Amino acid sequence: MPDNNHPVAVDVKKPAGPRKAVGLPRALRGSHGGPGEAPLGEPFGLTNFGVNLTTLAPGAVSALRHGHSRQDEFVYILEGCPTLHTDEGRTRLSPGMCAGFKAGGCDAHQLINETDETVAYLEVGDRTPGDEAHYPDDDLKAEMIKGQWRFAHKDGRPW
Amino acid sequence: MPDNNHPVAVDVKKPAGPRKAVGLPRALRGSHGGPGEAPLGEPFGLTNFGVNLTTLAPGAVSALRHGHSRQDEFVYILEGCPTLHTDEGRTRLSPGMCAGFKAGGCDAHQLINETDETVAYLEVGDRTPGDEAHYPDDDLKAEMIKGQWRFAHKDGRPW
Repeated sequence: MPDNNHPVAVDVKKPAGPRKAVGLPRALRGSHGGPGEAPLGEPFGLTNFGVNLTTLAPGAVSALRHGHSRQDEFVYILEGCPTLHTDEGRTRLSPGMCAGFKAGGCDAHQLINETDETVAYLEVGDRTPGDEAHYPDDDLKAEMIKGQWRFAHKDGRPW
Repeated sequence: MPDNNHPVAVDVKKPAGPRKAVGLPRALRGSHGGPGEAPLGEPFGLTNFGVNLTTLAPGAVSALRHGHSRQDEFVYILEGCPTLHTDEGRTRLSPGMCAGFKAGGCDAHQLINETDETVAYLEVGDRTPGDEAHYPDDDLKAEMIKGQWRFAHKDGRPW
Protein backbone atom coordinates (compact mmCIF):
# COMPACT_ATOMS: atom_id res chain seq x y z
CA MET A 1 0.00 0.00 0.00
CA PRO A 2 1.27 3.49 -0.73
CA ASP A 3 1.99 5.70 2.25
CA ASN A 4 -1.37 7.43 1.87
CA ASN A 5 -3.19 4.12 2.52
CA HIS A 6 -4.79 4.09 -0.89
CA PRO A 7 -4.61 1.02 -3.13
CA VAL A 8 -2.27 0.96 -6.12
CA ALA A 9 -5.09 -0.19 -8.41
CA VAL A 10 -8.64 -1.54 -8.17
CA ASP A 11 -10.41 -4.15 -10.27
CA VAL A 12 -14.09 -3.27 -10.32
CA LYS A 13 -16.20 -5.80 -12.16
CA LYS A 14 -19.38 -5.58 -10.12
CA PRO A 15 -20.83 -2.18 -9.26
CA ALA A 16 -22.85 -1.86 -6.10
CA GLY A 17 -26.64 -1.96 -6.16
CA PRO A 18 -28.85 0.92 -7.25
CA ARG A 19 -27.88 4.18 -5.61
CA LYS A 20 -30.02 5.85 -3.01
CA ALA A 21 -32.57 8.36 -4.18
CA VAL A 22 -30.52 11.02 -2.32
CA GLY A 23 -33.58 12.96 -1.28
CA LEU A 24 -35.38 12.96 -4.62
CA PRO A 25 -39.08 13.62 -3.93
CA ARG A 26 -40.97 10.34 -3.80
CA ALA A 27 -43.56 11.61 -6.28
CA LEU A 28 -40.81 11.99 -8.87
CA ARG A 29 -39.01 8.68 -8.39
CA GLY A 30 -41.16 6.84 -10.92
CA SER A 31 -41.49 3.11 -11.26
CA HIS A 32 -38.34 2.56 -13.30
CA GLY A 33 -35.18 1.21 -11.72
CA GLY A 34 -32.29 3.47 -10.88
CA PRO A 35 -28.65 2.97 -11.78
CA GLY A 36 -26.15 0.81 -9.94
CA GLU A 37 -22.92 2.59 -9.16
CA ALA A 38 -19.41 1.81 -8.04
CA PRO A 39 -17.40 4.90 -7.11
CA LEU A 40 -13.97 4.47 -8.70
CA GLY A 41 -12.21 7.66 -7.64
CA GLU A 42 -12.94 7.47 -3.92
CA PRO A 43 -10.77 4.41 -3.20
CA PHE A 44 -7.83 6.55 -4.33
CA GLY A 45 -8.86 9.62 -2.36
CA LEU A 46 -9.70 11.70 -5.42
CA THR A 47 -11.71 14.82 -4.61
CA ASN A 48 -11.46 17.13 -7.65
CA PHE A 49 -13.74 14.92 -9.72
CA GLY A 50 -15.75 11.75 -9.30
CA VAL A 51 -15.80 8.66 -11.54
CA ASN A 52 -18.51 6.01 -11.31
CA LEU A 53 -18.85 2.67 -13.04
CA THR A 54 -22.61 2.74 -13.55
CA THR A 55 -24.98 0.00 -14.69
CA LEU A 56 -28.53 0.22 -15.99
CA ALA A 57 -30.65 -2.91 -15.91
CA PRO A 58 -33.23 -3.24 -18.69
CA GLY A 59 -35.77 -0.45 -18.20
CA ALA A 60 -33.63 1.57 -15.81
CA VAL A 61 -32.82 5.25 -16.27
CA SER A 62 -29.77 7.16 -15.07
CA ALA A 63 -31.70 10.06 -13.54
CA LEU A 64 -34.50 12.49 -14.28
CA ARG A 65 -33.45 14.46 -17.36
CA HIS A 66 -31.34 17.32 -16.03
CA GLY A 67 -28.51 19.77 -16.65
CA HIS A 68 -25.92 21.31 -14.31
CA SER A 69 -25.06 24.96 -13.80
CA ARG A 70 -21.38 24.57 -12.88
CA GLN A 71 -20.28 20.94 -13.12
CA ASP A 72 -19.31 19.30 -16.40
CA GLU A 73 -20.37 15.69 -16.96
CA PHE A 74 -19.05 12.98 -19.28
CA VAL A 75 -20.09 9.40 -20.06
CA TYR A 76 -18.23 6.63 -21.92
CA ILE A 77 -20.20 3.51 -22.87
CA LEU A 78 -18.54 0.20 -21.94
CA GLU A 79 -21.33 -2.30 -22.55
CA GLY A 80 -24.82 -2.26 -24.01
CA CYS A 81 -26.73 0.33 -25.98
CA PRO A 82 -28.41 3.01 -23.86
CA THR A 83 -30.55 5.76 -25.32
CA LEU A 84 -29.31 9.29 -24.67
CA HIS A 85 -32.24 11.69 -24.31
CA THR A 86 -31.42 15.38 -24.79
CA ASP A 87 -33.20 18.40 -26.22
CA GLU A 88 -32.04 17.08 -29.61
CA GLY A 89 -34.14 13.97 -29.16
CA ARG A 90 -33.09 10.38 -28.62
CA THR A 91 -29.75 8.95 -29.73
CA ARG A 92 -28.88 5.25 -29.39
CA LEU A 93 -25.32 4.85 -28.09
CA SER A 94 -23.07 1.79 -28.22
CA PRO A 95 -19.78 0.66 -26.65
CA GLY A 96 -16.95 3.06 -27.44
CA MET A 97 -19.26 6.05 -27.79
CA CYS A 98 -19.12 8.98 -25.41
CA ALA A 99 -20.99 12.16 -24.66
CA GLY A 100 -20.23 15.26 -22.65
CA PHE A 101 -22.52 17.80 -21.02
CA LYS A 102 -21.03 21.23 -20.52
CA ALA A 103 -22.05 23.08 -17.39
CA GLY A 104 -24.28 26.08 -17.87
CA GLY A 105 -25.89 24.96 -21.10
CA CYS A 106 -29.63 24.99 -21.49
CA ASP A 107 -29.76 21.37 -22.67
CA ALA A 108 -30.51 18.47 -20.33
CA HIS A 109 -29.76 14.76 -20.52
CA GLN A 110 -30.52 11.29 -19.22
CA LEU A 111 -29.62 7.74 -20.25
CA ILE A 112 -32.36 5.14 -20.62
CA ASN A 113 -31.88 1.42 -21.09
CA GLU A 114 -34.55 0.49 -23.60
CA THR A 115 -32.93 -2.87 -24.42
CA ASP A 116 -32.99 -6.33 -22.85
CA GLU A 117 -29.25 -6.23 -22.03
CA THR A 118 -27.48 -4.57 -19.14
CA VAL A 119 -25.79 -1.25 -19.90
CA ALA A 120 -22.50 -0.28 -18.27
CA TYR A 121 -20.71 3.05 -18.58
CA LEU A 122 -18.23 5.32 -16.89
CA GLU A 123 -19.52 8.69 -15.74
CA VAL A 124 -17.27 11.57 -14.73
CA GLY A 125 -18.26 14.78 -12.99
CA ASP A 126 -16.24 17.49 -11.34
CA ARG A 127 -16.88 18.93 -7.88
CA THR A 128 -17.15 22.64 -8.62
CA PRO A 129 -19.05 24.15 -5.66
CA GLY A 130 -22.31 26.06 -5.96
CA ASP A 131 -23.82 23.67 -8.49
CA GLU A 132 -27.50 23.67 -9.37
CA ALA A 133 -29.52 21.26 -11.50
CA HIS A 134 -32.46 22.08 -13.73
CA TYR A 135 -35.11 19.56 -14.85
CA PRO A 136 -37.00 20.69 -17.96
CA ASP A 137 -39.49 17.79 -17.88
CA ASP A 138 -40.40 17.90 -14.17
CA ASP A 139 -41.60 20.37 -11.55
CA LEU A 140 -38.22 20.26 -9.88
CA LYS A 141 -35.03 22.19 -9.33
CA ALA A 142 -32.07 21.29 -7.14
CA GLU A 143 -29.29 23.09 -5.36
CA MET A 144 -26.11 21.49 -4.01
CA ILE A 145 -25.55 22.65 -0.43
CA LYS A 146 -22.63 21.23 1.55
CA GLY A 147 -22.46 18.18 -0.66
CA GLN A 148 -26.18 17.38 -0.46
CA TRP A 149 -28.87 18.08 -3.05
CA ARG A 150 -31.75 20.22 -1.84
CA PHE A 151 -34.86 19.81 -4.00
CA ALA A 152 -37.69 22.28 -4.56
CA HIS A 153 -40.60 22.89 -6.88
CA LYS A 154 -39.87 25.24 -9.75
CA ASP A 155 -41.65 28.05 -7.86
CA GLY A 156 -39.29 27.57 -4.92
CA ARG A 157 -41.58 25.66 -2.54
CA PRO A 158 -39.64 22.82 -0.93
CA TRP A 159 -40.72 19.28 -1.74
CA MET B 1 -26.67 19.62 -33.40
CA PRO B 2 -27.47 21.23 -30.05
CA ASP B 3 -27.65 25.01 -29.98
CA ASN B 4 -24.12 25.20 -28.57
CA ASN B 5 -22.72 23.56 -31.74
CA HIS B 6 -21.40 20.55 -29.86
CA PRO B 7 -22.21 17.01 -31.04
CA VAL B 8 -24.74 14.91 -29.16
CA ALA B 9 -22.30 11.99 -28.96
CA VAL B 10 -18.99 10.90 -30.46
CA ASP B 11 -17.77 7.45 -31.48
CA VAL B 12 -14.00 7.39 -31.02
CA LYS B 13 -12.46 4.16 -32.18
CA LYS B 14 -9.13 5.49 -33.41
CA PRO B 15 -7.12 7.89 -31.27
CA ALA B 16 -4.87 10.35 -33.01
CA GLY B 17 -1.15 9.71 -33.34
CA PRO B 18 1.39 10.13 -30.53
CA ARG B 19 1.01 13.43 -28.77
CA LYS B 20 3.52 16.21 -29.10
CA ALA B 21 6.34 16.33 -26.59
CA VAL B 22 4.82 19.64 -25.39
CA GLY B 23 8.22 21.14 -24.65
CA LEU B 24 9.74 18.17 -22.84
CA PRO B 25 13.55 18.56 -22.97
CA ARG B 26 14.94 16.52 -25.86
CA ALA B 27 17.50 14.85 -23.59
CA LEU B 28 14.65 13.38 -21.54
CA ARG B 29 12.42 12.16 -24.35
CA GLY B 30 14.06 8.72 -24.52
CA SER B 31 13.84 6.28 -27.38
CA HIS B 32 10.49 4.78 -26.41
CA GLY B 33 7.32 5.76 -28.17
CA GLY B 34 4.86 8.12 -26.60
CA PRO B 35 1.14 7.66 -26.21
CA GLY B 36 -1.49 8.26 -28.86
CA GLU B 37 -4.36 10.38 -27.62
CA ALA B 38 -7.85 11.37 -28.64
CA PRO B 39 -9.35 14.15 -26.54
CA LEU B 40 -12.91 13.13 -25.70
CA GLY B 41 -14.09 16.06 -23.61
CA GLU B 42 -13.13 18.85 -25.97
CA PRO B 43 -15.66 17.99 -28.72
CA PHE B 44 -18.34 18.72 -26.12
CA GLY B 45 -16.72 21.92 -24.86
CA LEU B 46 -15.83 20.52 -21.44
CA THR B 47 -13.33 22.65 -19.54
CA ASN B 48 -13.48 21.56 -15.89
CA PHE B 49 -11.68 18.30 -16.63
CA GLY B 50 -10.13 16.52 -19.60
CA VAL B 51 -10.69 12.94 -20.79
CA ASN B 52 -8.39 11.24 -23.27
CA LEU B 53 -8.67 7.88 -24.99
CA THR B 54 -4.98 6.97 -24.91
CA THR B 55 -3.14 4.14 -26.63
CA LEU B 56 0.31 2.70 -25.96
CA ALA B 57 1.95 0.68 -28.71
CA PRO B 58 4.24 -2.15 -27.55
CA GLY B 59 7.19 -0.53 -25.75
CA ALA B 60 5.54 2.86 -25.37
CA VAL B 61 5.26 4.71 -22.06
CA SER B 62 2.60 7.21 -20.99
CA ALA B 63 5.05 9.83 -19.68
CA LEU B 64 8.10 10.21 -17.50
CA ARG B 65 7.13 9.00 -14.03
CA HIS B 66 5.54 12.00 -12.33
CA GLY B 67 3.07 13.32 -9.77
CA HIS B 68 0.92 16.46 -9.69
CA SER B 69 0.62 19.08 -6.98
CA ARG B 70 -2.99 20.13 -7.56
CA GLN B 71 -4.60 18.03 -10.26
CA ASP B 72 -6.04 14.58 -9.60
CA GLU B 73 -5.56 11.91 -12.26
CA PHE B 74 -7.43 8.68 -13.02
CA VAL B 75 -7.00 5.87 -15.53
CA TYR B 76 -9.37 3.05 -16.56
CA ILE B 77 -7.96 0.23 -18.67
CA LEU B 78 -10.00 -0.67 -21.77
CA GLU B 79 -7.64 -3.01 -23.65
CA GLY B 80 -4.30 -4.67 -23.02
CA CYS B 81 -2.19 -5.06 -19.92
CA PRO B 82 0.01 -2.06 -19.12
CA THR B 83 2.42 -1.97 -16.20
CA LEU B 84 1.73 0.73 -13.62
CA HIS B 85 5.00 1.98 -12.13
CA THR B 86 4.71 3.81 -8.79
CA ASP B 87 6.80 4.10 -5.63
CA GLU B 88 5.22 0.78 -4.65
CA GLY B 89 6.86 -0.92 -7.58
CA ARG B 90 5.33 -2.39 -10.73
CA THR B 91 1.75 -3.60 -10.99
CA ARG B 92 0.38 -5.32 -14.10
CA LEU B 93 -3.08 -3.98 -14.93
CA SER B 94 -5.76 -5.52 -17.16
CA PRO B 95 -9.06 -4.40 -18.73
CA GLY B 96 -11.56 -3.27 -16.12
CA MET B 97 -8.88 -2.18 -13.67
CA CYS B 98 -8.42 1.42 -12.68
CA ALA B 99 -6.04 3.58 -10.69
CA GLY B 100 -6.20 7.09 -9.29
CA PHE B 101 -3.46 9.52 -8.37
CA LYS B 102 -4.40 12.10 -5.78
CA ALA B 103 -2.88 15.54 -6.18
CA GLY B 104 -0.29 16.54 -3.64
CA GLY B 105 0.90 13.06 -2.80
CA CYS B 106 4.57 12.22 -2.81
CA ASP B 107 4.08 9.18 -5.07
CA ALA B 108 4.58 9.30 -8.83
CA HIS B 109 3.29 7.14 -11.67
CA GLN B 110 3.64 6.11 -15.28
CA LEU B 111 2.16 3.38 -17.49
CA ILE B 112 4.46 1.20 -19.59
CA ASN B 113 3.39 -1.23 -22.29
CA GLU B 114 5.72 -4.19 -21.78
CA THR B 115 3.57 -6.52 -23.88
CA ASP B 116 3.24 -7.22 -27.60
CA GLU B 117 -0.35 -5.98 -27.71
CA THR B 118 -1.66 -2.43 -27.92
CA VAL B 119 -2.90 -0.91 -24.68
CA ALA B 120 -5.89 1.45 -24.59
CA TYR B 121 -7.19 3.34 -21.59
CA LEU B 122 -9.19 6.37 -20.55
CA GLU B 123 -7.34 9.04 -18.59
CA VAL B 124 -9.08 11.83 -16.69
CA GLY B 125 -7.49 14.91 -15.17
CA ASP B 126 -8.96 18.09 -13.80
CA ARG B 127 -7.87 21.61 -14.70
CA THR B 128 -7.13 23.09 -11.29
CA PRO B 129 -4.81 26.08 -11.94
CA GLY B 130 -1.34 26.45 -10.46
CA ASP B 131 -0.38 22.82 -11.03
CA GLU B 132 3.19 21.58 -10.80
CA ALA B 133 4.67 18.19 -11.65
CA HIS B 134 7.53 16.42 -9.91
CA TYR B 135 9.69 13.71 -11.48
CA PRO B 136 11.48 11.55 -8.91
CA ASP B 137 13.53 9.60 -11.49
CA ASP B 138 14.72 12.53 -13.63
CA ASP B 139 16.44 15.89 -13.26
CA LEU B 140 13.23 17.66 -14.06
CA LYS B 141 10.41 19.66 -12.60
CA ALA B 142 7.50 21.35 -14.37
CA GLU B 143 5.13 24.21 -13.75
CA MET B 144 1.88 24.88 -15.58
CA ILE B 145 1.76 28.50 -16.70
CA LYS B 146 -1.17 29.73 -18.76
CA GLY B 147 -1.96 26.22 -19.94
CA GLN B 148 1.61 25.39 -20.99
CA TRP B 149 4.19 23.30 -19.12
CA ARG B 150 7.44 25.10 -18.31
CA PHE B 151 10.29 22.66 -17.62
CA ALA B 152 13.39 23.19 -15.50
CA HIS B 153 16.20 21.24 -13.88
CA LYS B 154 15.59 20.36 -10.24
CA ASP B 155 17.89 23.24 -9.21
CA GLY B 156 15.72 25.68 -11.15
CA ARG B 157 17.87 26.19 -14.25
CA PRO B 158 15.66 26.15 -17.35
CA TRP B 159 16.15 23.32 -19.82
